[in-house]
Amino acid sequence: MIIGLRELRFFLEIVALKSISKAAESLHITQPALSTKIKKLEQTLGFTLFERNWEGVQLTTKGGYFLPYAVQLLQSMEDATTVLNQDNGNAMQTFTEVINDSQRLRIGIDGWLLPYVLPRLYKVLTADTTEHGLKIVTQPSLVLKTLVSHSCLDLAFFYSVDPSEDKAIRALPLYEDEMILLCHQSHALLHSPIEHLSNVINNLPFILFDNPTLSHHSQITKRITDLFKIQHFHVVDDLYTAFSLISHNLAFTILTATCALHLQNHSIFSSIAVKPLGNYLPLAYINMAGSTSFEQSPIFEAITAAMQNTKKPANNAG
Amino acid sequence: MIIGLRELRFFLEIVALKSISKAAESLHITQPALSTKIKKLEQTLGFTLFERNWEGVQLTTKGGYFLPYAVQLLQSMEDATTVLNQDNGNAMQTFTEVINDSQRLRIGIDGWLLPYVLPRLYKVLTADTTEHGLKIVTQPSLVLKTLVSHSCLDLAFFYSVDPSEDKAIRALPLYEDEMILLCHQSHALLHSPIEHLSNVINNLPFILFDNPTLSHHSQITKRITDLFKIQHFHVVDDLYTAFSLISHNLAFTILTATCALHLQNHSIFSSIAVKPLGNYLPLAYINMAGSTSFEQSPIFEAITAAMQNTKKPANNAG
Repeated sequence: MIIGLRELRFFLEIVALKSISKAAESLHITQPALSTKIKKLEQTLGFTLFERNWEGVQLTTKGGYFLPYAVQLLQSMEDATTVLNQDNGNAMQTFTEVINDSQRLRIGIDGWLLPYVLPRLYKVLTADTTEHGLKIVTQPSLVLKTLVSHSCLDLAFFYSVDPSEDKAIRALPLYEDEMILLCHQSHALLHSPIEHLSNVINNLPFILFDNPTLSHHSQITKRITDLFKIQHFHVVDDLYTAFSLISHNLAFTILTATCALHLQNHSIFSSIAVKPLGNYLPLAYINMAGSTSFEQSPIFEAITAAMQNTKKPANNAG
Repeated sequence: MIIGLRELRFFLEIVALKSISKAAESLHITQPALSTKIKKLEQTLGFTLFERNWEGVQLTTKGGYFLPYAVQLLQSMEDATTVLNQDNGNAMQTFTEVINDSQRLRIGIDGWLLPYVLPRLYKVLTADTTEHGLKIVTQPSLVLKTLVSHSCLDLAFFYSVDPSEDKAIRALPLYEDEMILLCHQSHALLHSPIEHLSNVINNLPFILFDNPTLSHHSQITKRITDLFKIQHFHVVDDLYTAFSLISHNLAFTILTATCALHLQNHSIFSSIAVKPLGNYLPLAYINMAGSTSFEQSPIFEAITAAMQNTKKPANNAG
C-alpha cells in the first residue's frame, strides 16, 4: 500500500472545492490526471472516496471517515519536514533543543499513566546524586514500544493486555491494572451485582473512553465490549469529556484504575462514584522497558526498584 | 513531495535491524533496490537519515528526530485503513458507531478549551427541548479549522493568534485569552515586575508546554519566546507533566489562561502560583465557527448566545 502526501493533498483539495475540475485548476494539473490519481488512491485504500452527482462530487460515508485522518497525516508530515528543513527562526531553535538531549533521560509515558509514574520518578531522580535531566514524552502505548525498541527513548511506561506479547523489547510487568466502573453516585449500576452487569449494561448509555479505532487502548476496549456484549456506545477521545458526561449522569464507563487516577484530584467530578470490578474482567498490565544500553545503567535499577516496591495505584478514585 | 507508507516501513525496518542487507532480506527486496528507495526518501525529506559505519547503518540526528513521526504516521494510516477495510469484528462495529452520528451534533474542541466550553455547552443542550445527542472530538486547533470548513464538524472551538486570519471559515471571536505565568509559590519571579521579566527569565529553567514543532500552539509559543528572548527551554507535551514540574519547583512556564483552567480543580497542584501578565504579552483568541449548514440552525444561535453572554474564564487558577 503506497499513499503519498501528494495524493492526500489532492483529496483535500477536491473536498474543499467540491469539484474535480475546480481542484484540478487550483492544483495546476489536468482533470483526467487528477481523476486517475484519485481512482488510484481509492484502489489503494480499498473503498470509494467520492460519489459523483449533478452538483459535482460529494464525499462517501467512508470518505468522510477518512478525512480527519488525511488532515492530521498531512499536518504531521508537514510539521516534521518543515522543522527539519528550516535553517533559522524559532522552529529550528526548538528542533535543536529537542534533539540536544543526550544529557537527559528520555522517558516515554502513556499519558494516562502520568499520575502513577511521575511522582515516583521524581522521587528517584531527586535522590540521584548524578542529577539527570529529564525529558518526558507522552505517546500512546503502541508508539512508545516502538520508540524504546529503536533506542529513541531510554525508558518507557506503557499498557499491554498480555505482558509476554512484546517480542522486540524486554518488558518488565510492574503490576496488574484492575478495571473499574465509573458512574454517577445516584446510578442504579452501583448496586447491581457484578455478575449481572452484562444483562443491564446493554440498555444504558455506555461511553467508551478513547477511540478504539485508533491504537490507543484498542486491546483493552475490545475486552470490555466483548465481555459485556456492548453493541452501542458513544466514543469519547478525551478523559475530561468522559468525566464531564458521567458527572452530569449522561453516561457511564468502564476503564482501568490508572486512568481514574486523573479523576481523583479533580474536585468538580466529586459526583462520580467508582465500583471496582475485581477479577471479573481480564486485567491489563502496566509495563516498563528500557533501551538495550539504558538497561545497564545504575539509575535503571533504582527506577525499577522504586516502581516495584510500591503499592498498586488506589482504585478508590473519586 | 511524495512520501509513501511503504517508504516509511522500509525506513523503520532498517532502524530496527540496524542493517540495510538484513532489512532487505526481511522485506523480500534486493539490497540495491532498498538503498535506492532510502536515497529517494532522503532526497524528498531534504536530509540524510542514515550514516554508514563498519557496524552497519546508524541513524543521523535528524533521522532520529524524524523517527517518532514515521512511527506515528504509519500507525495512524494503518488504523484508518484497517478499520475501513474490515467487514466484521469490533473495529467495524466501532466504525459504524463513529459514522452513524447524523443525529448528533458533532462538536470539535481544542483539548485545552474543554473546561471552558463543556459546562456551557451542557447547559444549552440540557435546556434544548429537541434533545440533540452530542459527539465531541478533541483535536488541535489547526485540525479543527480544516474539519469544520469541510463540514466534518457542525461546530468547532479553537485558538488563534489573529481572529481575522481564517479565510476558509467564518470564525466568531468569543473572547481574548490572556497569558499567565505559572511558577512555584516560593518562586522569585512572582515578585518581579512584569516589565523586568525578560531580563531574568533567560537564566531560569523555562518549560514550554506543548511541542512547538507541532502545530498545536506554535503561534502562541512563538510570541512568548520572541518577546522574552527565550533561548533555552525544555519542551513538555502534556499539561500534567508541566504542572508536576512546576509544583516540584523544577521549572516555570507561561501559557494561556484557559490552559490553566485544567489546574484549577486539581488539588495536588496547590503549590503552583499564578501571575497574570495582563496586556503585556499579545493576546490569543478563542474562536467558534459553524459549518455552513449548521450556522442556520436555531441551536447554533443558542450556543452563540450562551458562549458570548458569559464572563471570561477566571485567570486566578491555582
